[in-house]
Amino acid sequence: MTEFTPAFHEKTPLYDQLYRYIISQIRSGALKQGEKLPSKRALAGHLGISLTTVEKAYGLLTAEGYLESRPRSGCRVAAALADIPLLSQPISPPPPREERLDECFSTSAVDTSVFPFSTWARLNREAVYENPGLLQRGEGQGDWGLRGALSDFLHQYRGVVCAPEQVVLAAGLEGVMWILLQLLPQAVFALEDPGYGSLRRLLDNLGRRWVPAAMDSKGPVIQNLEESGADVAYVTPSHQFPLGHTIPAGRRGELLRWAYAREGRYLIEDDYDAEFRYASRPIPAMQGMDVGGRVIYVGTFSRTIAPSIRVAYLILPPELLEDYHRKFSHASATVSRFEQEALCRFLTSGAYGRHLRRAGGLYRRRRDALRAALEGWGEIRGAEAGLHLLFTLPGREEKDLVDRAARAGYRVRGLGEYCVGEDPLPGTLVLGFAGLEEERAAGAVGALREAFE
Amino acid sequence: MTEFTPAFHEKTPLYDQLYRYIISQIRSGALKQGEKLPSKRALAGHLGISLTTVEKAYGLLTAEGYLESRPRSGCRVAAALADIPLLSQPISPPPPREERLDECFSTSAVDTSVFPFSTWARLNREAVYENPGLLQRGEGQGDWGLRGALSDFLHQYRGVVCAPEQVVLAAGLEGVMWILLQLLPQAVFALEDPGYGSLRRLLDNLGRRWVPAAMDSKGPVIQNLEESGADVAYVTPSHQFPLGHTIPAGRRGELLRWAYAREGRYLIEDDYDAEFRYASRPIPAMQGMDVGGRVIYVGTFSRTIAPSIRVAYLILPPELLEDYHRKFSHASATVSRFEQEALCRFLTSGAYGRHLRRAGGLYRRRRDALRAALEGWGEIRGAEAGLHLLFTLPGREEKDLVDRAARAGYRVRGLGEYCVGEDPLPGTLVLGFAGLEEERAAGAVGALREAFE
Repeated sequence: MTEFTPAFHEKTPLYDQLYRYIISQIRSGALKQGEKLPSKRALAGHLGISLTTVEKAYGLLTAEGYLESRPRSGCRVAAALADIPLLSQPISPPPPREERLDECFSTSAVDTSVFPFSTWARLNREAVYENPGLLQRGEGQGDWGLRGALSDFLHQYRGVVCAPEQVVLAAGLEGVMWILLQLLPQAVFALEDPGYGSLRRLLDNLGRRWVPAAMDSKGPVIQNLEESGADVAYVTPSHQFPLGHTIPAGRRGELLRWAYAREGRYLIEDDYDAEFRYASRPIPAMQGMDVGGRVIYVGTFSRTIAPSIRVAYLILPPELLEDYHRKFSHASATVSRFEQEALCRFLTSGAYGRHLRRAGGLYRRRRDALRAALEGWGEIRGAEAGLHLLFTLPGREEKDLVDRAARAGYRVRGLGEYCVGEDPLPGTLVLGFAGLEEERAAGAVGALREAFE
Repeated sequence: MTEFTPAFHEKTPLYDQLYRYIISQIRSGALKQGEKLPSKRALAGHLGISLTTVEKAYGLLTAEGYLESRPRSGCRVAAALADIPLLSQPISPPPPREERLDECFSTSAVDTSVFPFSTWARLNREAVYENPGLLQRGEGQGDWGLRGALSDFLHQYRGVVCAPEQVVLAAGLEGVMWILLQLLPQAVFALEDPGYGSLRRLLDNLGRRWVPAAMDSKGPVIQNLEESGADVAYVTPSHQFPLGHTIPAGRRGELLRWAYAREGRYLIEDDYDAEFRYASRPIPAMQGMDVGGRVIYVGTFSRTIAPSIRVAYLILPPELLEDYHRKFSHASATVSRFEQEALCRFLTSGAYGRHLRRAGGLYRRRRDALRAALEGWGEIRGAEAGLHLLFTLPGREEKDLVDRAARAGYRVRGLGEYCVGEDPLPGTLVLGFAGLEEERAAGAVGALREAFE
């Protein structure tokens, strides 16, 4: 019979320590299946512990199937335990990655210092303290208040035509895609090229088919789209990422016609960065032009409020809304209800509109500073809107520029990193300015210039 | 030339109203492509508004591609606009559905009255007020603090063996599945039968293949699993939903052996309702038995705190963790960072542990009350753990029982609703008790009894 030598300590109850010890003996192979255990009384005497303690441990082990006890023959290790794998080396996870570059040119930066944090904190506190009921499950689509506030806001600011019934809230763009991929399970997606890498990665990760949508200076090329076999085109009409174009009304019409031409075709309008436009006022959303119910409007607060606000939204056309109700009838919203409530108050109180105007002013000054610092060095494009611009040094290798910048301590990205096909503007960097303070622009650009020489 | 008769009002700038009016004229077909617009000066005179206003509106329309202006020939509606669809009927969304039954027997109810809301509200307020930095993007995997607190908690309470590096946070079970489906894009899932309908619906929605895993009294039948062609088995070892079984150690070992037998096989352990066990102490998680890195542990706070707390978590084995880092290197966490911080404080302060004990006591009393009310009427099963039990009236039709209950104002569900294959216990209702106050149990059961006669 196996020697029982548990090393007891004081932190946990004795029965629990004995229980764990016997499991470890089984798992290490010291106790084999079918092997008889010492009687409860004998073990209690041997270890100098009470009989009750041993009984409790044996009882648990029997209840959990580790031991089998038969009347008059005592406890044995269960025969089925032949199938429990033996303990080998403990597994240690891979070490965390470590890498630190200056992210001031990041295209996903947001300056949260301009955010009215104390207002937000107050609205948050009120939302929590005044609404214990929000602990309970809300509507899967999102709570009515925020959906209403959003549809009002989008109508007023973006020309979106929708009812609160069409609004679906989701946890970030990930949550939005999670819903869309279930609504469009068979669809082949056309993704703008150049465009978001994360969308391509996402579809690749899921084994979903997608095709690149070639772009000209007005937006996706219709002929190409037609030939690609795509059913759904994901587009950024207000401010193409990363080229910075705005799709003009004519091309928008062509896109809509493309969608209307066949059953099951949709346009996903990602109204990315539409809130920030410096040369003229924001251009209304394509969704407002859609009379056939084929535009799915998508937006998020990650850029306009803060990256950690995980609230994005879909405006579904009626046909897809019916699908949604059918497929998601039991689904829960993925957004915290307290955050929904706080955001609803932020919108309806007018604080959000005021914040957008303030943030727009800040980002305009940052764009101006970056543009001034770059002027005369290379070519600047796409700086009329959004939070990034394109900067081209003709004849230079993007990879070399990116590497040199990294050695100088700055993370920048080349346009080619966003391309599936050929890079339309070789030697181009995509420079974000939302995280680049005015007073830092000259210095950071100077450092790049030095590194590139 | 078209008559221009916009009805100006005072709320928005005149130029904007003119701009919208002209678009509406184009979209209604009143202005046709190529048609010449009145000169700016003429229109200003005609409408009695300033030339600047007209210039601004025409400028916008030109910038957005609605108009084309050629020197000396004025503005025309852009030729490309032939492709803009004409406005037809406005689309109205489908009316919202309305249905109200008493949900006291719901299996997803949680009684939030026992939740220490004032503590939660305070921790929430502190988390927000003390951490403006949480507005910025955090780690995609979730913030370190909560991941650490969770791995400690799960080790102590559930016997889970993991490092914070292996913890991934996600917005509810939806967020968890979103990650898993990307980590296992080709896998065929085996889903317990009977089991969660929502998982099946989800995979169906995405066009993913799954097979039902037949169950005996100990859990999924290995032989069956082997023959099914499944790569990944989704199991609820602590408290099978809805049968209420606990998988004994022997069968857990067999499941692990099944997973080890072939590359790419995994067990997803949904540690559903493990926190609530009435007859004995909670049974440790299967994850703690896994020495081969094939168990993916999944949990959520929806049941233990509140349905609206959208925080779930994955514990990934090392191999999948590497995949995760590769595939999700650019992904953002789907959980609000403020809620992560509040939850972290809730765990580390010990408030969560205290809450679980209190909630466990409440639910035990509710189970006792329901059991007492049902005793002597039919057969009760699976009441040793979790927040529901099975109640069988042999010889009765489940559908008839469900319909009768609905007519009496109560929503109940038959076991067959969770089955793909044959109902293992015809005439069985799945009755939740978490939402059924002790003093209501006798009345609600009495109402069912009357309805079923």
